[in-house]
Amino acid sequence: MRAVDIIQRKRDGAELSREEITSFVERYTKREVPDYQASALAMAVFFRGTTAAETVALTEAMMRTGEVLDLSELPGPKVDKHSTGGVGDKTSLVLAPLAAACGVYVPMISGRGLGHTGGTLDKLESIPGFRVQLSLGEFRSVLKQCRLGLIGQTPEIAPADRKLYALRDVTATVESLPLISASIMSKKMAEGIDALVLDVKTGDGAFLQKFEDSRALARTMVEIGRGMGKKVAALITDMSQPLGRTVGNALEVAECVEVLKGRGPKDLESLSLELAAWMLSLAGASASLEEARRRVRDALDSGAGLRTFQQVIELQGGDPAVCDDLRKLPAAREKVELKSDGEGRVTRIACRAVGRAAMLLGAGRETVDSRIDPAVGLVLHKKVGDLVLPGESLMTVHVNDRTRLDEALAMLKAAVELGPQAPASTPLVREVLN
Amino acid sequence: MRAVDIIQRKRDGAELSREEITSFVERYTKREVPDYQASALAMAVFFRGTTAAETVALTEAMMRTGEVLDLSELPGPKVDKHSTGGVGDKTSLVLAPLAAACGVYVPMISGRGLGHTGGTLDKLESIPGFRVQLSLGEFRSVLKQCRLGLIGQTPEIAPADRKLYALRDVTATVESLPLISASIMSKKMAEGIDALVLDVKTGDGAFLQKFEDSRALARTMVEIGRGMGKKVAALITDMSQPLGRTVGNALEVAECVEVLKGRGPKDLESLSLELAAWMLSLAGASASLEEARRRVRDALDSGAGLRTFQQVIELQGGDPAVCDDLRKLPAAREKVELKSDGEGRVTRIACRAVGRAAMLLGAGRETVDSRIDPAVGLVLHKKVGDLVLPGESLMTVHVNDRTRLDEALAMLKAAVELGPQAPASTPLVREVLN
Repeated sequence: MRAVDIIQRKRDGAELSREEITSFVERYTKREVPDYQASALAMAVFFRGTTAAETVALTEAMMRTGEVLDLSELPGPKVDKHSTGGVGDKTSLVLAPLAAACGVYVPMISGRGLGHTGGTLDKLESIPGFRVQLSLGEFRSVLKQCRLGLIGQTPEIAPADRKLYALRDVTATVESLPLISASIMSKKMAEGIDALVLDVKTGDGAFLQKFEDSRALARTMVEIGRGMGKKVAALITDMSQPLGRTVGNALEVAECVEVLKGRGPKDLESLSLELAAWMLSLAGASASLEEARRRVRDALDSGAGLRTFQQVIELQGGDPAVCDDLRKLPAAREKVELKSDGEGRVTRIACRAVGRAAMLLGAGRETVDSRIDPAVGLVLHKKVGDLVLPGESLMTVHVNDRTRLDEALAMLKAAVELGPQAPASTPLVREVLN
Repeated sequence: MRAVDIIQRKRDGAELSREEITSFVERYTKREVPDYQASALAMAVFFRGTTAAETVALTEAMMRTGEVLDLSELPGPKVDKHSTGGVGDKTSLVLAPLAAACGVYVPMISGRGLGHTGGTLDKLESIPGFRVQLSLGEFRSVLKQCRLGLIGQTPEIAPADRKLYALRDVTATVESLPLISASIMSKKMAEGIDALVLDVKTGDGAFLQKFEDSRALARTMVEIGRGMGKKVAALITDMSQPLGRTVGNALEVAECVEVLKGRGPKDLESLSLELAAWMLSLAGASASLEEARRRVRDALDSGAGLRTFQQVIELQGGDPAVCDDLRKLPAAREKVELKSDGEGRVTRIACRAVGRAAMLLGAGRETVDSRIDPAVGLVLHKKVGDLVLPGESLMTVHVNDRTRLDEALAMLKAAVELGPQAPASTPLVREVLN
């Protein structure tokens, strides 16, 4: 099985066998197949796509280049959630403690933010002392104690994916649905979970802006999960404006704590609860989705979710007192109000632009090597549909470094559009693939 | 201009600018752009194709990574011929001396055989002492003295092409019309010629077997030549059976000498004369194609072509006496007659199979590193349309190493098909693009 023949078969539209795919991925990981053959194959896949069987085989092959966690010693279903990323998208910090409080295990391996989108690890690291780089042994131990663990990608998980992703990034082969799907699923399926809920964002602030594209990605990932014998559902959710009211790492942690105390913004609360309910239901921990919804609501109302969050913070080296006193989170030196010149209803908040502006302030990464500032970001006082009067504050911008402040403010100002009346409201969950 | 953006633009179907193409090729040649980006771009070109402007820009960029000969000191038009390769395709050794004898300069840089096809350099090297690796200085000197020089690719000519070709070979990106065309033309246009005649083979023994594919290749190469301000014509010629009666290096040289003496097979003679006439005509050395045809015929009949051939052999270190005594060429130890079991007219000679069989005997290369034996090959006694009686010899196989003889003989036997009547004859020149 020569690599060049495998490339040629894919180029010419043939379906690759599981053996061909596995051999290529294994040899690529061992550096027996060079980068220039992998990039040629990736480009051929970009143009030809893959069949469902090929996508499953690719995902499994990538997963098996590394460690696949065996969490069978944990006495209960293991379930995770993955989001394709957005602006102010912080549901993990709410839903993971809620689901764990309801009795399922949540071994969550997350990523960092890039570009206009944030990342769970960055948010967690804004909690003083919180360690996301646990060994797999420590991870197991934390999971056993509070049914929840929140860590970053380890070198043992799907090394093929890390190698291939870096290559795709410089060869214009990122935007391939099967490659994106296999990349996500190879890492998630290595977590040793029984079920996975996918939050596939759609709209201006999402990785894929068009609904049809988001649906295709959701479908591909659900197919992969099924093909690997796991329970998978995908919720396609709106990312046409930031989720909740905060963008920026410590600000988002604070907002999540508020949600866990029952005082958070309703959009963030309801999406977090719905995703957590799907986690319970998919994992078989509830008789029905309805029952699961009641249970996660109870876990919120009783404070059980908040307690689990405090517990995981403590177990992972962080200071759980931040939940009692949010002033223990890093804070920016300066707050700048962005005031409205006009009057009317908010018709649109350009979501991607808000994410980019937060990045310029230091809340996000321009490149993978950028350093971020946990304290900075913004708090939205107005969301789509809200009435705005002249001189009212649209948002508060939290700043440490003023270098790119003017640029960020101009971007934010342009991002909020006013009109005579509120637009028809978009449902938060637009479609469920199950 | 980041390489990844250039790849992405081509991937998405945009037309690349001359600056983008030039920058990518230059940086690739200097190893500033790595192989994995070049292979991704090549695969994107495979799927997206190129516009005429892009193909011209690519060819020029590749040509300009190396030396472009300036032969302006030679007092007359410079013209060459290039064939896309075939079986028994030896016209260069006939037409180059004829055209030179008619007064044009022929600075011919040729290649070696690979797979089922032969190469001019291999044929020339079967002449005892003949040196094809001249320095460019020696090449100029030979050209000045006899208006003809026959050398191999030098490292100074289009290094980007050599690098890219090796990469395409292992990344399944060989079969791309624009890349094939740019590869050929970047080397030919570096020869400092005013005009170029392309012999684009079509049929079973050709690189491209389908007529439409051959025509598309011819059209692309003619476009490139025009775009670079040169006079270019393409003759699409039949390669459904071997050209002439010999396949194998020394055997082919002997056959060419016979043609130059007016005693060669008519198909080889007529195609060589026609291509030489086009060379004169395109180069502006004759008032019309008709006049050019008369002049090359005269050069054949008068022996002027043969004398030029002897002269170039002598100037390039070979023994010109081979033309007087063909026994001075290397000869195989053994001759095996392949006899016919049946009776009838030859309806087909599977051309590619004959080429492969000659390769098995040692006349050609299985890989670029294979060693060839100049003495071995075969002589066809029957061509398509000829009557065959039982027991008559179809061909004589010239052998040194019997290792793969049986395999070759079986292949050759299966290659010759008999039937009750001769098929309609195919014209040798099927179409001219001018």
